[in-house]
Amino acid sequence: MNQQQRQKIYETAKRWIYEAGTEIREHMNDPLDIETKSNPNDLVTALDKQTEKFFVDRIHQAYPEHHIIGEEGFGDTLSSVDGTIWIIDPIDGTMNFVHQKRSFAISIGILHNGIGEIGFVYDVMGDQLYHAKRGEGAFKNETRLEPLDKKKKLEESIIGMNHFWLCENRVVSYPVMQKFVRTVRGTRTIGSAALELASVAEGVQDAYLALSLAPWDVAGGIILNQEVGGVAGDVDGNPWNPLERAPAVVANPAIHDSIIGFLKEGRK
Amino acid sequence: MNQQQRQKIYETAKRWIYEAGTEIREHMNDPLDIETKSNPNDLVTALDKQTEKFFVDRIHQAYPEHHIIGEEGFGDTLSSVDGTIWIIDPIDGTMNFVHQKRSFAISIGILHNGIGEIGFVYDVMGDQLYHAKRGEGAFKNETRLEPLDKKKKLEESIIGMNHFWLCENRVVSYPVMQKFVRTVRGTRTIGSAALELASVAEGVQDAYLALSLAPWDVAGGIILNQEVGGVAGDVDGNPWNPLERAPAVVANPAIHDSIIGFLKEGRK
Repeated sequence: MNQQQRQKIYETAKRWIYEAGTEIREHMNDPLDIETKSNPNDLVTALDKQTEKFFVDRIHQAYPEHHIIGEEGFGDTLSSVDGTIWIIDPIDGTMNFVHQKRSFAISIGILHNGIGEIGFVYDVMGDQLYHAKRGEGAFKNETRLEPLDKKKKLEESIIGMNHFWLCENRVVSYPVMQKFVRTVRGTRTIGSAALELASVAEGVQDAYLALSLAPWDVAGGIILNQEVGGVAGDVDGNPWNPLERAPAVVANPAIHDSIIGFLKEGRK
Repeated sequence: MNQQQRQKIYETAKRWIYEAGTEIREHMNDPLDIETKSNPNDLVTALDKQTEKFFVDRIHQAYPEHHIIGEEGFGDTLSSVDGTIWIIDPIDGTMNFVHQKRSFAISIGILHNGIGEIGFVYDVMGDQLYHAKRGEGAFKNETRLEPLDKKKKLEESIIGMNHFWLCENRVVSYPVMQKFVRTVRGTRTIGSAALELASVAEGVQDAYLALSLAPWDVAGGIILNQEVGGVAGDVDGNPWNPLERAPAVVANPAIHDSIIGFLKEGRK
């Protein structure tokens, strides 16, 4: 994908994101048609589905040769990263959307032959658009995000993670994570992976750890991080695979290895 | 304190809060003079101190007979709740202030003979003022907050709590809290007690649990909650004592007893 192609897709996607955001804000006080998916706390609303369909229809029309991976299933099932792929979460943080009516995001990552080209995380209620193009830096609205602080120490870091890391889980033994929590400066939980990753790219959090994330939860946010030096991969330090659901660590490069070292101690 | 006195103090305090907020926003990109207090992660900046002094000077001038309890020590040491007491946290969430430059608040609670009369939580960067007067309801800016949902179930609740509840601590055994985390719908960590409590009053979180809070962390937020039906007390269900540092539970009334029941199982 050359710079000109990237720019055109970026502008089109950005316009659609603002349109979809307006639509969500207009309809978010309608009675919510809430369903549950894998478990009673895995929520989905009609608005998640409508918003994904909004993007899928437009992409099919404008770019019939592009592929789509979407949370709500209107996209394709892919076994290869060849070509151009849009990875879409129409409402990331649906629990926040339902319970808080804020702190949720539209997340879109666009890859070409496996390389992250364009990333968006749009905080819909805060009207804050995080966006990045490969090689051209990452921005929050009009403000360029600084490269991440290479002198950051783990003991002075704020880490985004949920509370399940400290319960029995399949990834890592919780006593190691108890030690981790006592080592870092502070821990936070926003409840939207996309906004957690945008916070890492912005340097207001120094890492985000997740026990299990799908491609659509992270694609947009990982591309933002690429542009400021953030490192994204799994809990063993392997690079991100855009076709797999997996545990994830996205971190400031200065603390990434220390985090992986910590997790290694407790890996199952 | 009659309605007229309350109204006058409320208007004065509100004006000072907006002034202090403007001052903080203007100076927050100055080089920060950060010190630590009880431990390396208990931060305080010159701006915390200046802001407290700003309030203390004005209160002394306007209301020389009032008492003050403040985080940074410019207030009084009180052994009784007699008279009118301003309980002030000039910057609640100093770690967020330092690392994130957002998600911190000015918190002020004003009590008369032990009764919460006026409460403020001001999200400085979001420019959102939560405010309440006894018997007159709670508001977020100009919008009246609804009474908390009396049909809320614990399994459908979002709980604000930090990650130390799931580590060895003096208050409750962590296996019980692991069960708690698996019982509720979701958990969140903002990193400012005042904003956590404002979220409970707003109904976007259903409870906030803290292992140890000082009066200034909670006074403003507890008074907001009183006005929407939120219940505030310690981990054993005893009512809030405005002169003591203690663990705290502030919750939607429909789930308060279930939370206390859970904690009882693991109390030390």
